[in-house]
Amino acid sequence: MNSFANITGTYTDYYQLTMSQVYFLKGHSNQKAVFDYFFRKIPFGGGYVVFAGLYDLLEILQNLKFSKDDLEFLSDCGLNKDFIQYLKDFSFRGTIYSSNEGDIVFPTRPVLQVEADIIEAQIIETVLLNTLNFQSLIATKACRMSYQAPEGSLIDFGLRRSQGLGGYQASRAAIIGGFSATSNVISAKDNQTDVSGTMAHSFIQSYDDELTAFRHFAENMSENSVLLVDTYDTLKSGIPNAIKVAREMEERGQRLKGIRLDSGDLAYLAKKSREMLNDAGLSDVKIAASNQLDEYVIKSLIEQKAPIDLFGVGTNLVTGQPDAALDGVYKLCHFNGKPRIKLSENINKTSLPDKKQVFRIFNGEGQFYGADAITLRHEKGLDKMHHPFEADKKISLKGLNSEPILKKVMENGKVLIDKKSLKDISDYRRERLSLLPQEFKRFDNPHVYKVGISTILMNQRDELKEEYKKS
Amino acid sequence: MNSFANITGTYTDYYQLTMSQVYFLKGHSNQKAVFDYFFRKIPFGGGYVVFAGLYDLLEILQNLKFSKDDLEFLSDCGLNKDFIQYLKDFSFRGTIYSSNEGDIVFPTRPVLQVEADIIEAQIIETVLLNTLNFQSLIATKACRMSYQAPEGSLIDFGLRRSQGLGGYQASRAAIIGGFSATSNVISAKDNQTDVSGTMAHSFIQSYDDELTAFRHFAENMSENSVLLVDTYDTLKSGIPNAIKVAREMEERGQRLKGIRLDSGDLAYLAKKSREMLNDAGLSDVKIAASNQLDEYVIKSLIEQKAPIDLFGVGTNLVTGQPDAALDGVYKLCHFNGKPRIKLSENINKTSLPDKKQVFRIFNGEGQFYGADAITLRHEKGLDKMHHPFEADKKISLKGLNSEPILKKVMENGKVLIDKKSLKDISDYRRERLSLLPQEFKRFDNPHVYKVGISTILMNQRDELKEEYKKS
Repeated sequence: MNSFANITGTYTDYYQLTMSQVYFLKGHSNQKAVFDYFFRKIPFGGGYVVFAGLYDLLEILQNLKFSKDDLEFLSDCGLNKDFIQYLKDFSFRGTIYSSNEGDIVFPTRPVLQVEADIIEAQIIETVLLNTLNFQSLIATKACRMSYQAPEGSLIDFGLRRSQGLGGYQASRAAIIGGFSATSNVISAKDNQTDVSGTMAHSFIQSYDDELTAFRHFAENMSENSVLLVDTYDTLKSGIPNAIKVAREMEERGQRLKGIRLDSGDLAYLAKKSREMLNDAGLSDVKIAASNQLDEYVIKSLIEQKAPIDLFGVGTNLVTGQPDAALDGVYKLCHFNGKPRIKLSENINKTSLPDKKQVFRIFNGEGQFYGADAITLRHEKGLDKMHHPFEADKKISLKGLNSEPILKKVMENGKVLIDKKSLKDISDYRRERLSLLPQEFKRFDNPHVYKVGISTILMNQRDELKEEYKKS
Repeated sequence: MNSFANITGTYTDYYQLTMSQVYFLKGHSNQKAVFDYFFRKIPFGGGYVVFAGLYDLLEILQNLKFSKDDLEFLSDCGLNKDFIQYLKDFSFRGTIYSSNEGDIVFPTRPVLQVEADIIEAQIIETVLLNTLNFQSLIATKACRMSYQAPEGSLIDFGLRRSQGLGGYQASRAAIIGGFSATSNVISAKDNQTDVSGTMAHSFIQSYDDELTAFRHFAENMSENSVLLVDTYDTLKSGIPNAIKVAREMEERGQRLKGIRLDSGDLAYLAKKSREMLNDAGLSDVKIAASNQLDEYVIKSLIEQKAPIDLFGVGTNLVTGQPDAALDGVYKLCHFNGKPRIKLSENINKTSLPDKKQVFRIFNGEGQFYGADAITLRHEKGLDKMHHPFEADKKISLKGLNSEPILKKVMENGKVLIDKKSLKDISDYRRERLSLLPQEFKRFDNPHVYKVGISTILMNQRDELKEEYKKS
């Protein structure tokens, strides 16, 4: 269940509606359009993107309607009466080909393709970009952290610093990217994921002393207690009090679950806390740490062998710092029976025409070869691919296995794929990431994954370019 | 109307519920708590923050309930049966004192105070931070742009690159910060603001030639047409075709509204386009520009005297680049009849105890003096203020006027203030910003606004600190 799945048709940019009105009044309503969704730049200076948001998008599209309120507002905006009547009966009845949610994807090549009547394809553009750009950004950020941290160690704490309601989607994408739990209750409820959280500083402050606060908490939350130890002094007060309470719990036949560090030098405090806990016979008590973490801090803590079992990550995860946006675009590539391109003075901004397929190439060991090839949709016999913008660069694909990436996930507005759990999507992501060679995954100057085009597609694009230039 | 105002009680962090369960089981449910909302760091290296999100928050709080689904989920999480029963009847019945929405606010001092039963105050923390942090971030970013650009010239184009559903709130905050319209239809509908948008590249591409595309658009959208001129070649194709269409419109007794540039050197293309349009007798046709704008690019375009009438701003506005989050926090300052503080090894992270008021100080000319003074709520006779962290620094306030900033906006869970239009909130923002001296508004190393505390508050904090240290 998605609490926000029934957003209405006005969740769009106004120009989608003005353009659509012109198509409607000119009788183009039923002309078929094909749009590519792709991005140009990998965020975070990384080597890959984790594709996320697909199922949320499909649910939204399957339910998309204009409400009575919407129609009244659009009428007040001055849109045409007959067009408003058309919108009253609007639903999205298009077909979508997509990469699997959780797959590792790369710039320039279609991640998803929409085929629909032009008005339908146009009206959904904004919500499609809004959903896929953001969730892919966050899943990618989360994946960079999960690539560093032990499995099961990452918890999303970000809702309070999220970009408003975007926090709802950020928590979903974080799980896809490799987080194992979230503090965000509504997201955990809707997505059936693990929820996490125990106490804040305010809880300790509400008591006259830390020990009583810990005691009350442990008495009521028992084995789910993670005690926050830095309110007064971590090593002189927090840890000693936590040890006292852990011993009292032992007398009741219970074990303390953990302690949390939320300030100071996390590596130093984790080591000292671990020692103190171990000396007290509490080597099973886990250490959680939070406070401005990101993939680099996590990497550094792990390299310093800080004995941290759980990392709580907030702002940097849920806002996708420092990029904050994936630059995904939606480009018309086929309309009314004809392939289309958008020219640009910048050759690498010229779009690829027509209905397409993308092939992931594998090496002999079943690992990703480091290349995706874009072809026309029904093209057979791919044996080489060309650099998309530098015609004389090409590589042979002979003898290499390949796998088509774009699969039909929606037909006539109906979702064709089963809803998967986020855990399953995350497992798939991990499996796919494990096929990507190491050098694409490192943080500093990762290897550049090659994306190429087939000879047929290249020729078609270049002919179309000439044609446009002539006219 | 806010399409997302009836979010439910699970829009929170799980630890709010575990802490609340302990309060409930220990019989502390009715103990009164007071929390301060404040932030520590001004984003964008700027000199001020525009406070936004208040009315959205109050609407959410007034309607906040746990749904049947919520309660089932929390029960599955293992929360106590009696506590779940308590949540079934939950509503927020607290009192809130706040700065006016749209006011210019500064770090360290309370922007808002919540007084409520501890459980209620705790459960709303997450949605409060989530709403106020984000909208204040975006209103501040928007205000930095509107401080540069002529009134009425800024349009929000950001929904497609927004952080998911956060785009809904970003568009609201952008208007408060000084934008005059948005492409985001659902936001314009809910907030009764102007909506903007005409055509995308895909519209041009769907035709065999640009001229026919322009013609069809102008025939159907008439005087609302803004023609996108950069699909093929701005100066050789786009502008000449726009001029042709404008002349055809003249023959029908209509005027073309404008043209839009979306790539290339915007300053150069705007100047050349202006010349060509003027030479064709079309000096009233407006020039709109978009493409990766932010406050610095807008400032540069204006300094270059680029004749741009409308700026369409997307990603950098709605994601609040490069900061992407305001670091607002929510700190307990009074509980069960006693003032509370949170200590920190960092003196500037030690919180201020008790129920407080904030005074804005004015100079003889009615301008902001450049200082806010924090006092106890009912303190009288403010004559000096102290630096909050450096005891020997103080300034005299004798003979200066001051104005209390925190006003009661909600009582017993009911909103006390009238809903204002976003335009009115933006007008108030502009008026308040005009009272802030120039040197606080510049982009480079702005003057630091002083925030001080009264002698009584300082003494109370220091006594409390000593008390805590002893125990």
